[in-house]
Amino acid sequence: MGHGQVVRVDSFEAHPSAYRHWRLGLDGPVATLTLDIGEDNGLRPDYQLKQNSYDLGVDIELRDVSERLRFEHPEVRVVLVTSAQPKVFCAGANIPMLGTSTHHFKVNFCKYTNETRVGLEEATSESGQVWVAALNGTAAGGGYELALACEEILLIDDRSSAVSLPEVPLLGVLPGTGGLTRLVDKRRVRRDVADLFCTKAEGFRARDALRLGLVDATYPRSRWEEAVQARALEVAAARPARASQGIALPPLEVEVGADGARTYGSVQFTLSDDGRTATLLVQAPTAPPPTTAEALRAEGASTWALRAFRELDDALVHLRFNFPEVGLVLLRTAGDPVEVLAHDAALHALAGDWLADEITWLQARVLRHLDNTAKSMFAVVDEGSCFAGCLAEVVLAADRAYMLDVDGGPTLRVTRTASEGRLPMATGLTRLQNRFFGDVALVEGALATEGRALGGAEALELGLVTLAPDDLDWEDELRIAVEERVSLSPDALTGMEQNLRFVGPETCETRIYGRLSAWQNWIFQRPNATGEQGALTLYGHPERPRFDWERT
Amino acid sequence: MGHGQVVRVDSFEAHPSAYRHWRLGLDGPVATLTLDIGEDNGLRPDYQLKQNSYDLGVDIELRDVSERLRFEHPEVRVVLVTSAQPKVFCAGANIPMLGTSTHHFKVNFCKYTNETRVGLEEATSESGQVWVAALNGTAAGGGYELALACEEILLIDDRSSAVSLPEVPLLGVLPGTGGLTRLVDKRRVRRDVADLFCTKAEGFRARDALRLGLVDATYPRSRWEEAVQARALEVAAARPARASQGIALPPLEVEVGADGARTYGSVQFTLSDDGRTATLLVQAPTAPPPTTAEALRAEGASTWALRAFRELDDALVHLRFNFPEVGLVLLRTAGDPVEVLAHDAALHALAGDWLADEITWLQARVLRHLDNTAKSMFAVVDEGSCFAGCLAEVVLAADRAYMLDVDGGPTLRVTRTASEGRLPMATGLTRLQNRFFGDVALVEGALATEGRALGGAEALELGLVTLAPDDLDWEDELRIAVEERVSLSPDALTGMEQNLRFVGPETCETRIYGRLSAWQNWIFQRPNATGEQGALTLYGHPERPRFDWERT
Repeated sequence: MGHGQVVRVDSFEAHPSAYRHWRLGLDGPVATLTLDIGEDNGLRPDYQLKQNSYDLGVDIELRDVSERLRFEHPEVRVVLVTSAQPKVFCAGANIPMLGTSTHHFKVNFCKYTNETRVGLEEATSESGQVWVAALNGTAAGGGYELALACEEILLIDDRSSAVSLPEVPLLGVLPGTGGLTRLVDKRRVRRDVADLFCTKAEGFRARDALRLGLVDATYPRSRWEEAVQARALEVAAARPARASQGIALPPLEVEVGADGARTYGSVQFTLSDDGRTATLLVQAPTAPPPTTAEALRAEGASTWALRAFRELDDALVHLRFNFPEVGLVLLRTAGDPVEVLAHDAALHALAGDWLADEITWLQARVLRHLDNTAKSMFAVVDEGSCFAGCLAEVVLAADRAYMLDVDGGPTLRVTRTASEGRLPMATGLTRLQNRFFGDVALVEGALATEGRALGGAEALELGLVTLAPDDLDWEDELRIAVEERVSLSPDALTGMEQNLRFVGPETCETRIYGRLSAWQNWIFQRPNATGEQGALTLYGHPERPRFDWERT
Repeated sequence: MGHGQVVRVDSFEAHPSAYRHWRLGLDGPVATLTLDIGEDNGLRPDYQLKQNSYDLGVDIELRDVSERLRFEHPEVRVVLVTSAQPKVFCAGANIPMLGTSTHHFKVNFCKYTNETRVGLEEATSESGQVWVAALNGTAAGGGYELALACEEILLIDDRSSAVSLPEVPLLGVLPGTGGLTRLVDKRRVRRDVADLFCTKAEGFRARDALRLGLVDATYPRSRWEEAVQARALEVAAARPARASQGIALPPLEVEVGADGARTYGSVQFTLSDDGRTATLLVQAPTAPPPTTAEALRAEGASTWALRAFRELDDALVHLRFNFPEVGLVLLRTAGDPVEVLAHDAALHALAGDWLADEITWLQARVLRHLDNTAKSMFAVVDEGSCFAGCLAEVVLAADRAYMLDVDGGPTLRVTRTASEGRLPMATGLTRLQNRFFGDVALVEGALATEGRALGGAEALELGLVTLAPDDLDWEDELRIAVEERVSLSPDALTGMEQNLRFVGPETCETRIYGRLSAWQNWIFQRPNATGEQGALTLYGHPERPRFDWERT
């Protein structure tokens, strides 16, 4: 267990002009995204992507298009997802790929696809780009889960196409891309109906699927195209127009070192010699912010608030997939905190402008990706750092924050602009509300400092940092903390952090990451799934799986 | 993995007169429960219970006393938990026991101890029997988690006694008895402070523990006894007196068959020939209910509403521990539904009487134990059944309900008395609210039938049962459903059910079972914990664990 094919992913970037699995069509407010997965286009050569089944490469393009449409095509109001293959919409994640992947890869693959699905829901709710699944063939497993992440599900009524979640009966694992949670919590399918559905490998066709609430509408093949288009235009008409012209998202500029270190324009990702500790450093902007909507558009993807967070997001996903042995990430910043606050303030002043809002939403989701990264995180507030405004949220996202406490030393600056609701966690709480759960006075105490430069002692007093050593103790204390952290069981740390980071309310999203994923990770380790005679291992082979019947 | 010492537990009953690990002292409103675990009194001979570390036998007595005090000693307002051993309160679960147990046993042991801890919180909030931890020595791991389940934690200030959660640094597993959740969600310890604490093997002594919110008060050794007693009387005085005389809880009367089948007065637990399916059958009362508080007291533990649910609870815990290969439980009832409703109504009419309330709370927690049992559950509503009132809740707790639909056939009867809030799930929702999540009209539609006898077709129409075959299909349909269910991966089913059964809001309790336990189960399977060189395996040995550093 834990062994399997390792794949190093060189790039998580993509562009519609070079998609290998999706076709993007644009027609005014309606974008149509057509899935046509090349069987031989997998990231590894040892499996075939039959029946529109996907691997990470397919999902990298899906994430790209969902991000790109928000910035490049604000005129789009509806994204129709459909298939170019006859009778099949999508068969879900490729099983031979899963069966031969390491536990680390499987878990990170599921997290990535889950974040992508949550991203579709955010595009719908935030940008008003409504994702609609137009299932012109069977949607099985991850294929139906992709549909569940859409706002509406349309299914062709052709006496053969069905929706199904066959993971439990066929593979001995869970539908791990949010399916179970979205069935009962989002679509509010009755729990016993969901139980029937999730144990019925062949699923339900149009009539039953509609009756049971598994889809929203069905149309016969004779008028499928017409009805889907009509519904798309109806949905589009119900959403206000936003803008007619977007900005381009060019590829990120990055230099990659021999050890995998990545140097972007505003972000640096570096590794310790032993490869167990990484550093993510974000640099403050060096030029004043654009202060009008026109100036913001002119800067486009190069504006600091967008570029730095796109770079951070890219660094995070490389960290997760390509550096499994990194146990601890030191979160650092460098530059002038006043510039960070100026860029925050300018963006906030433009709130309501579609592009300013998109940048804020992107910052928020990148910070949620940081919250959701299974590495220990220590924020290091030392000389020359600029943890202010949106970068102060990085301190609040860390498992611990170390701050040097010396006269004239580093400062921390908390603002209402960044920390009072614009950058919420997956629970819906702000990071201050999460930190001071249930204690309104402490939240307000921090917010009331409103951008004032807080030294180590004061930040400690306000509960904003964990420890504030003076310069005599600083180096030793940090060194010992790092050494101790990377000596601990990586599994125990992942479990501990998942339970301490998110306090209070839960949402569909937090339940997917905290509950569904935890059970899936457990099942992925069990011999009944991934042992030599496990169901996942034997899928597609003539032998039947052999189960140890012990229920836990 | 999965191998280890199997222990069959002959009885989960206990009585203070025969406790081997606890001493119960009663002094008016203050009960004192003193932990003194005999090293050689473990359930298995291959480990020693050093330093007041516990195994299941210790917890069986703890659960007994927490149940018993509520019924036998309603005059008790405070339960002080303390230790008879010098310098140590409790070192938590015994590690050699855990290290040599099967995965199945470990997981069920943790669930049992968790349910016991939740029970202490319910005794506090429902019965006003306030559990107070008087830590006269170090409380480590599960020892501190026991304290966290109490309403108040008092710690001796003697420069050596500490509270700690050393699981992550010393054992490579989680504090799995609610510790992580209760730290941040119940006690609202800041997440970064909790991170420090949970990675610091030696924990914190009185001064720091008080400052960080890990305990509520500390007293020096010189005035420990006196201060603890004074605080206990203070807490007792703040709670209204309830009653001066309780009822006795005698041992359950049960006949045990050669295959482990159990026949109680009102409950029968039987097994299929292949041992994969069990049946739990509850029989309706055959005599009218007591209708006055005096009559209820006179019937005492023999009254149906109490006896049947105590028996059901005992059957459930035998099922979990001693029948790991049972995958499916058929939930059945037999008798006159009118009698069930009569007992419900009589109990409800006495609401406010301490004993009537205790019986209702017990019914509610037994039903939550049913919700929380990792076996598939099909309710079978057939001829002669009596799924009415509190037993209709059994139908709503099932993963599926099959109801025979014939004229003059079985009926289902839903009442406001049983289904509108008296028997809540762990989420705080009623089972109807959970079933029809977010749909008030469907909830009200079911409640409005108010005890009317619903046939199969009507129950199906109201969404109360999953399938309602007629008598031509009934036998085949049920047989096939059973065969299919027990053929599926037991792990996948456990994960699926955990995600479908509980919809909507979450509480400290649901997070412990759904999130914390899932991560713990995952970690228990990982080689870093339970492999040959894992931290749990090697604890107490001179070798250091060897970790695979891959983070997932």
